[in-house]
Amino acid sequence: MSSTKASENKSLKLIEDPVGTLEPLGPFARSRRVHVEDGDVRVPFREIELSAGEPSFRVYETSGPHFEGRSVDELRAGLPKLRQPWIDRRIAKDGENKTQLWYARRGIVTEEMRFIAIRESVTPELVRDEVAKGHAIIAVNHKHPESEPMIIGRRFLVKVNANIGNSAVSSSIADEVDKLRWAVKWGADTIMDLSTGKNIHETREWILRNSPVPVGTVPIYQALEKVKGKPEDLNIDVFIETLIEQAEQGVDYFTIHAGVLLRHIPLTRGRTTGIVSRGGSILAKWCLHHHKENFLYTEFEKICDVMKKYDVSFSLGDGLRPGSIADANDDAQFAELATLGELTDIAWKHDVQVMIEGPGHVPMHKIKENVELQDRICKGAPFYTLGPLVTDIAPGYDHITSAIGAAMIGWFGTAMLCYVTPKEHLGLPNKQDVRDGVIAYKIAAHAADLAKGHAGAQARDDALSKARFEFRWEDQFNLSLDPEKAREFHDETLPAPAAKGAHFCSMCGPQFCSMKITQDLKQYADSQALSEEEARARGLEERAQAFREGGGDFYVGGADAEEE
Amino acid sequence: MSSTKASENKSLKLIEDPVGTLEPLGPFARSRRVHVEDGDVRVPFREIELSAGEPSFRVYETSGPHFEGRSVDELRAGLPKLRQPWIDRRIAKDGENKTQLWYARRGIVTEEMRFIAIRESVTPELVRDEVAKGHAIIAVNHKHPESEPMIIGRRFLVKVNANIGNSAVSSSIADEVDKLRWAVKWGADTIMDLSTGKNIHETREWILRNSPVPVGTVPIYQALEKVKGKPEDLNIDVFIETLIEQAEQGVDYFTIHAGVLLRHIPLTRGRTTGIVSRGGSILAKWCLHHHKENFLYTEFEKICDVMKKYDVSFSLGDGLRPGSIADANDDAQFAELATLGELTDIAWKHDVQVMIEGPGHVPMHKIKENVELQDRICKGAPFYTLGPLVTDIAPGYDHITSAIGAAMIGWFGTAMLCYVTPKEHLGLPNKQDVRDGVIAYKIAAHAADLAKGHAGAQARDDALSKARFEFRWEDQFNLSLDPEKAREFHDETLPAPAAKGAHFCSMCGPQFCSMKITQDLKQYADSQALSEEEARARGLEERAQAFREGGGDFYVGGADAEEE
Repeated sequence: MSSTKASENKSLKLIEDPVGTLEPLGPFARSRRVHVEDGDVRVPFREIELSAGEPSFRVYETSGPHFEGRSVDELRAGLPKLRQPWIDRRIAKDGENKTQLWYARRGIVTEEMRFIAIRESVTPELVRDEVAKGHAIIAVNHKHPESEPMIIGRRFLVKVNANIGNSAVSSSIADEVDKLRWAVKWGADTIMDLSTGKNIHETREWILRNSPVPVGTVPIYQALEKVKGKPEDLNIDVFIETLIEQAEQGVDYFTIHAGVLLRHIPLTRGRTTGIVSRGGSILAKWCLHHHKENFLYTEFEKICDVMKKYDVSFSLGDGLRPGSIADANDDAQFAELATLGELTDIAWKHDVQVMIEGPGHVPMHKIKENVELQDRICKGAPFYTLGPLVTDIAPGYDHITSAIGAAMIGWFGTAMLCYVTPKEHLGLPNKQDVRDGVIAYKIAAHAADLAKGHAGAQARDDALSKARFEFRWEDQFNLSLDPEKAREFHDETLPAPAAKGAHFCSMCGPQFCSMKITQDLKQYADSQALSEEEARARGLEERAQAFREGGGDFYVGGADAEEE
Repeated sequence: MSSTKASENKSLKLIEDPVGTLEPLGPFARSRRVHVEDGDVRVPFREIELSAGEPSFRVYETSGPHFEGRSVDELRAGLPKLRQPWIDRRIAKDGENKTQLWYARRGIVTEEMRFIAIRESVTPELVRDEVAKGHAIIAVNHKHPESEPMIIGRRFLVKVNANIGNSAVSSSIADEVDKLRWAVKWGADTIMDLSTGKNIHETREWILRNSPVPVGTVPIYQALEKVKGKPEDLNIDVFIETLIEQAEQGVDYFTIHAGVLLRHIPLTRGRTTGIVSRGGSILAKWCLHHHKENFLYTEFEKICDVMKKYDVSFSLGDGLRPGSIADANDDAQFAELATLGELTDIAWKHDVQVMIEGPGHVPMHKIKENVELQDRICKGAPFYTLGPLVTDIAPGYDHITSAIGAAMIGWFGTAMLCYVTPKEHLGLPNKQDVRDGVIAYKIAAHAADLAKGHAGAQARDDALSKARFEFRWEDQFNLSLDPEKAREFHDETLPAPAAKGAHFCSMCGPQFCSMKITQDLKQYADSQALSEEEARARGLEERAQAFREGGGDFYVGGADAEEE
């Protein structure tokens, strides 16, 4: 197992200490982090201890060492560099660290692939094969050895990304480190640092050194800072310089808006909400000012050279995604998608991994077309969508408007869902918004896994429903996506500890609890059940009598406490 | 216009006053209640005043006279009886008040149908025709003349029901009246009083006299109280007595679990969560105790006689709906549905209106089958579903797990969506849970209207998105489903009044606001736009020069403030 002494991690020492006020996070009740080992690959899971003799239940776990709570000193030191030995070995053997796509195409199963195979309960060969085809990516910059490998592709569990990052108006480094820990606690599979305010470089450094999940960025934001906020002063040199700076820090994937072409821009003219992507609008301004083609497009191979060196993956940005229901699936959006298909081929030629970003705001009946087109045009490269929001009319609740679209688009084949928080369109999300956004998207991703018939996905639903049926309240809470919220809601009306063993809740009370009634009936069945033959022989009236004599208890099935 | 003096409303006088502590609700900012008149039919809308010369925007409005705020004295007096003159006229003419289905089948357009036609922007003939076919219902007990007519059917706007009501463990009459006002403020189209605790009759009276929307109940709950909570002591007489008592008070629709047959009960034996419907479990217990067929089924025509007399609509309950993903779409559920199809024919024979209740817990890929089967088996009778929840693993967030399923099932044709609150499975919802549940379901219903291509549905999305693009923050808030939440979230990071005119928010700050960048570009276009011919003649370089000289502003389309 690779781990690094705090003292080796020099980068954070150069920065003024902003995390002194952060309290350690604790694990969830009755949960512990366990590992499945295969040689030097140690794959984390969360094991939830259940009561009443039920076997403990394992779930996919994203919070890394934050799980056990990390002190301020540990935050300063950064996480252990678990992938460092694998990277060092490859560099010793091949002269440099190649991309996961390079290895996959040559039939080589990397440690990251073995890690993922255990994590996803699939064969290492499936992982390698999907990566080799470009149908899945493993976003692992070798300068971010702290990350626990994960995979993004339609044959695997649907993933969730959480955006964090400050703006010129709001937030500090401590806030962002706190949001990072919070995001992975609730289950974010990757995070994006979208900082555009102060201390962009330092904020990113703190995040990377403490992130157990891949980190994405949109480098054009920092490039724009470097040219004092004037889009027209951007050029490929300052952009490449920015890419190298961020790649050296360890960023695992870059959103790059290379598909916003000069000829696409007039297609947005009739739109209700024009260009809503920050990166897209910056590049549109550049293109029009110079009346030249987007330099990210014309110099795309130069960019590939940087990506390849670090194994940074492309997240090809959809700078022209629709920002309203009115603009969904329009010519501008699909013209850009065609360009992203072109760029996918170029990236693959360089053994660079690629995923494709998608919308945005799309009514339900137009969602499927997005996935089908993307899959065809981008030859199966993983799709990574923001929502989509299925209506524009609910600012303050866009985690919900978009979870609806996200669940559906996940079912149709999207590999990763970029969360939307309740603050979308209104302000910078705080810590609580991050939690609300991540949980809404864990719901969407899991619902998509169920609908896709993903092997094993339903086991957690079944375990939780069984706990519910059997009045194992604590087990029900602990198996849920947010045990703390579930417990808090139950406590609101029935705070006494004894209520956690009660055969009813405040919703219906003891008399009207369908669970209680059917539980009573089930107990009778367990002691008195007749075989079908016996029942037929004795006749129906006798069964009725047996039921009455048994105290009126007869199995009719389980139940949970619902209204009506 | 019919209105009644407070003194005429005697029923509330008999009850101890429980509403003394309630504060009046106020209207939303810059909103007023307006009416479209057609003779003695006065249809309410909410008109939202916009800024910048934009025409004011009208939305469907459900809160009735609560909109303007009602004092404690007005709550005691009850709402005006707006339908009383119509009912009186019909009784004078036909000797009794017939059902809306009776009138519709005879080609008679009632005042209620004319009211609904204006409310839904359709022809009265469409309303009459859909009711005549049984494809839509107008739930209007003539003893609830306070209600503003609305329609439930797949050709109309998708509706939302909010469940309120106390339990033995929690809540008071004042709490329930407050939840009623709150539910209709946020847009509930009907409410169900599911009280099972103290003062069932009195609570219902307060609710009915103050409800501008149809009220549903599950009469078996009160019938069970009358037999001291012993399901086996239930019988048709006590049930009919309860129906009459509640019909006399004015309940507009009854959930009746007449489809839970003795032979269906063993089909639930292998279930993970058995029978989760309170009504379903009570009747299952009765059937097994007596080993007889469900008396609601065998005596169904007696029940129809009561329904017909008052024009109470059936909501045929799905007592065997699945309570977990594991149990979705199973034999028990579909066996009951077949019985509900039979009962629909019997009700229609009596000119009684019918809708059909549906699940429950259903993974996304099994939702469509529910709607298709229900539509075929119940010959187009409106479908009314609880969610469905698309996963079991998120107690505390089941307004979200179920809004996903609700949006989809609404798109597929469900006419009314029964909300689920965040407290589902955990406790009795409070006022805030009612708001969260209603808003989540207004989102689902509106998303379904959009996906169905419902005429006019997109106008609100377009108006809000235009306001967003034009930085009309107050208009954006006021056009949203929850203006108070949207404003509160914006205030959290930028509380200064001036920020409501700012061309950015705290999410991205001024530099990175895609809206601002593209707004700048649009302004340029408005002054400098070239026709395509001119542009071609002048050549591209000249356009670029024009752009630069114009200060770098050129239209590329609108934008909203999103991340990336």
